[in-house]
Amino acid sequence: MKYPFPTLTADEAAALINDKDTIGFGGFTAAGACKVIPPAIAVRAKAEHAAGRPFKLGVITGASTGKSLDGALAEAEAIAWRTPYQSDPTLRKSINEGKTQFFDLHLSAVQPAVRSGVLGKVNWAILEASHVTAQGEIVLTTAVGCANTFARVADKILIELNAHHPGDLMGFHDLFEPADPPRRRAIPVYAPTDRIGASFIKVNPAKIAGVVLTNCPDESGGFDAPDEVTNRIGANVAGFLANEIKVGRLPESFLPLQSGVGNIANAVIGALGSNPGIPPFMMYTEVLQDSVINLLQSGKCAFASSCSLTLSPDRLKEFYANLEYFRSRVVLRPQEISNSPEIVRRLGLITINTAIEVDLFGNVNSTHVMGRDLMNGIGGSGDFTRNAHVSIYTCPSVAKGGKISTIVPFVTHLDHSEHSVQVVVTEHGVADLRGKSPGERAALMIEKCVHPEYRDTLRAYLGASGKGHVQQTLHNAFGMHLAFLEQGDMRKVKWRE
Amino acid sequence: MKYPFPTLTADEAAALINDKDTIGFGGFTAAGACKVIPPAIAVRAKAEHAAGRPFKLGVITGASTGKSLDGALAEAEAIAWRTPYQSDPTLRKSINEGKTQFFDLHLSAVQPAVRSGVLGKVNWAILEASHVTAQGEIVLTTAVGCANTFARVADKILIELNAHHPGDLMGFHDLFEPADPPRRRAIPVYAPTDRIGASFIKVNPAKIAGVVLTNCPDESGGFDAPDEVTNRIGANVAGFLANEIKVGRLPESFLPLQSGVGNIANAVIGALGSNPGIPPFMMYTEVLQDSVINLLQSGKCAFASSCSLTLSPDRLKEFYANLEYFRSRVVLRPQEISNSPEIVRRLGLITINTAIEVDLFGNVNSTHVMGRDLMNGIGGSGDFTRNAHVSIYTCPSVAKGGKISTIVPFVTHLDHSEHSVQVVVTEHGVADLRGKSPGERAALMIEKCVHPEYRDTLRAYLGASGKGHVQQTLHNAFGMHLAFLEQGDMRKVKWRE
Repeated sequence: MKYPFPTLTADEAAALINDKDTIGFGGFTAAGACKVIPPAIAVRAKAEHAAGRPFKLGVITGASTGKSLDGALAEAEAIAWRTPYQSDPTLRKSINEGKTQFFDLHLSAVQPAVRSGVLGKVNWAILEASHVTAQGEIVLTTAVGCANTFARVADKILIELNAHHPGDLMGFHDLFEPADPPRRRAIPVYAPTDRIGASFIKVNPAKIAGVVLTNCPDESGGFDAPDEVTNRIGANVAGFLANEIKVGRLPESFLPLQSGVGNIANAVIGALGSNPGIPPFMMYTEVLQDSVINLLQSGKCAFASSCSLTLSPDRLKEFYANLEYFRSRVVLRPQEISNSPEIVRRLGLITINTAIEVDLFGNVNSTHVMGRDLMNGIGGSGDFTRNAHVSIYTCPSVAKGGKISTIVPFVTHLDHSEHSVQVVVTEHGVADLRGKSPGERAALMIEKCVHPEYRDTLRAYLGASGKGHVQQTLHNAFGMHLAFLEQGDMRKVKWRE
Repeated sequence: MKYPFPTLTADEAAALINDKDTIGFGGFTAAGACKVIPPAIAVRAKAEHAAGRPFKLGVITGASTGKSLDGALAEAEAIAWRTPYQSDPTLRKSINEGKTQFFDLHLSAVQPAVRSGVLGKVNWAILEASHVTAQGEIVLTTAVGCANTFARVADKILIELNAHHPGDLMGFHDLFEPADPPRRRAIPVYAPTDRIGASFIKVNPAKIAGVVLTNCPDESGGFDAPDEVTNRIGANVAGFLANEIKVGRLPESFLPLQSGVGNIANAVIGALGSNPGIPPFMMYTEVLQDSVINLLQSGKCAFASSCSLTLSPDRLKEFYANLEYFRSRVVLRPQEISNSPEIVRRLGLITINTAIEVDLFGNVNSTHVMGRDLMNGIGGSGDFTRNAHVSIYTCPSVAKGGKISTIVPFVTHLDHSEHSVQVVVTEHGVADLRGKSPGERAALMIEKCVHPEYRDTLRAYLGASGKGHVQQTLHNAFGMHLAFLEQGDMRKVKWRE
């Protein structure tokens, strides 16, 4: 195809980027992330630094990316500031050493923040595409993220045209960008299957600074096989939801599901698939993992709306081999639509996310370790949890071979408050916190979710606190964490009266 | 008027209520709350208790109520459990002594929770009305709250028909109840002025167990006059917003405002009214206080959508004397509409709420004192903050004559996380936290918002924490609170390395 814009090498593309530029990268997770321009920018950054010149960028993404993006740029010390969500070890280290300024955002809030101007000017949109036309029509690949907004607001656009993806992905994407207040109308999604936007991004071709031809697989890893703990968590979630249908608190036709990312999420989806009390369902979520593909094939999942297809390499190959089957069963949306509070509440999602730790009163930490170090970020968990019809958090009851209880008196970073967290599930059971006071919640958490080795410890915490609305004492609140930090084991905690 | 249902005395109405019944009370704040049936129930509860019989109720309200409702029932020890929000000293004490089980809900979530069945059966709706017809048409008074949902789902209805309100309040209420998922459509409010529902509640008259005739004013108190601190906070908020318009981050036509309750809120609204950089605006809020009435009269506020008219007695008298003027300028909605996340985000509200304390990283406590005792509850603050176009928290920088700094290292209860809290304002200045990392936020909070007497203390906290993503150390996190609890003054804190 003859383009009115140049075909560039990755190095030529990287040479266009200047110190202090802000870049919006397309994609969401490693799916659809750029793979060759960021490493070339990293090389350029190192050369600039070696020559004694500053070279640091502002980086906005959809969510996490692949190692060739966050990893390469962080390793080159090329990221001045970064938002939202990340999961790269090198970038995480840079953030936790205070070298990269990271601020976390609910993923549904990223596109509005970009448009509002509070993040400053976006100089570049760098996007992966499966197809580009001379008229400036861009078909994305395995994810959307914020690509449509970045393409519209950025001064200039660079495209990685990746031949590894099939050329006929047209129709998998549904791109809708609402007007900003005061001219916003309803987002017209009334069912997960509703299509409301365009199949491609359309830009003025004069804004496209160049196209880099690539042929690279997504850098999505696989997941560990489910183990006994994750299987029991999955079975507990499925059993709880099947009973909610039985007692009439959920409709017999069920409601659409959102599920987080990782091994527990995979196990939960698997358990929902095999529980006969759960009817065929739809997903309205931000990430599709391998387990959903199984259910789409078996028919237990009838349709999946997502922001990304984050599949292991083998699963993605299978997806591409059956493109026509999936074309009527999968849609990929921008994150302000996949995670929209308006849509989440309207559809009445059942949301299932993973906690790092939960306190006795139902507050959840999903982002930080010991109050200090960022793990990944809040991602979409808050968008979904706050507006869910039923919000569920899962976690194993212990970590580090039992030295850490994931259920604690006070979470060291609070991302989801007691007001939004309805149900907590560990391998030991289900604590349904809805309609319960803090005291009732604490008793239920200990009975249903806490590991048996920690039940007496946590009862003793409440005992040392005496009566009250929240049986919390500030001088003991982080006692278990401090016992771990100072003595290597939360079981060594001593409560002070 | 001849009714097909009996006219009862308050005692006769109270005699219909049984131990363990769940009652949904109409109203929102003291506005529109019931005033004669609850005291009669309290008398009945005391008599039952004196006779050695149990008598405790489940009580669901719109928000807080008047002293004749929460105060009387709490004093009679007649409330087994209670949700959401309250502000009565006797009830608060009962909750904080663990005698009443209280659980807090975002106010937009109360009606959906009632419908979903997780709160159990609602036996009674007890509502204040300004007009009732034999056909079961009920015109409410100064608030809506959850009245429309309670009336629909409850087995039976009792009405206080209050002659103190004018008989022609028809047209001030706009009652819309969305279908539940999976059959929910958009909530069709696209501007604060949009009317989408009915002016009265319609029930089967056979459900009305009786009407009690009353003539009582609302029990809304007045507010303290603004003082120097609240005036400076108000001026800081107005100055910040005027500048946002000037630099183009807010449209010149401005956006609708939500404002919390209390003296600071009154001062902020006053300051917005007198700042020439702020154009005439609309309110989309849950409580209308006196200061908004002034602005509706002057024209600076063109229209106000609310859930209640919480006016001082004199102001309400004036409102009633000018009913025709206000009829086209005020609408009262159910709280799931006034506080709807869908509408808040669509309209792009500027939200202004008050914090009990804020931490250096932008997390807000708006509900609890020292991690333990409930103050009032989360109310609508979370509904508005999370989905705001610009979310602002205000508080004086110190309390208790300087012995407490409202800005602390770690909030003792977290209701609004760093992800939603955008701007913090004290009498000393404005910290615009948008797009800033935790480290950058902490520096800005100290520079702009912290009281001068506490700046070095908080800088020393960060210093003792060393570098990191969140400069937080668990063993010092509550040091200032413990210094207050143990030594009566946060200034006596000693940081441990």
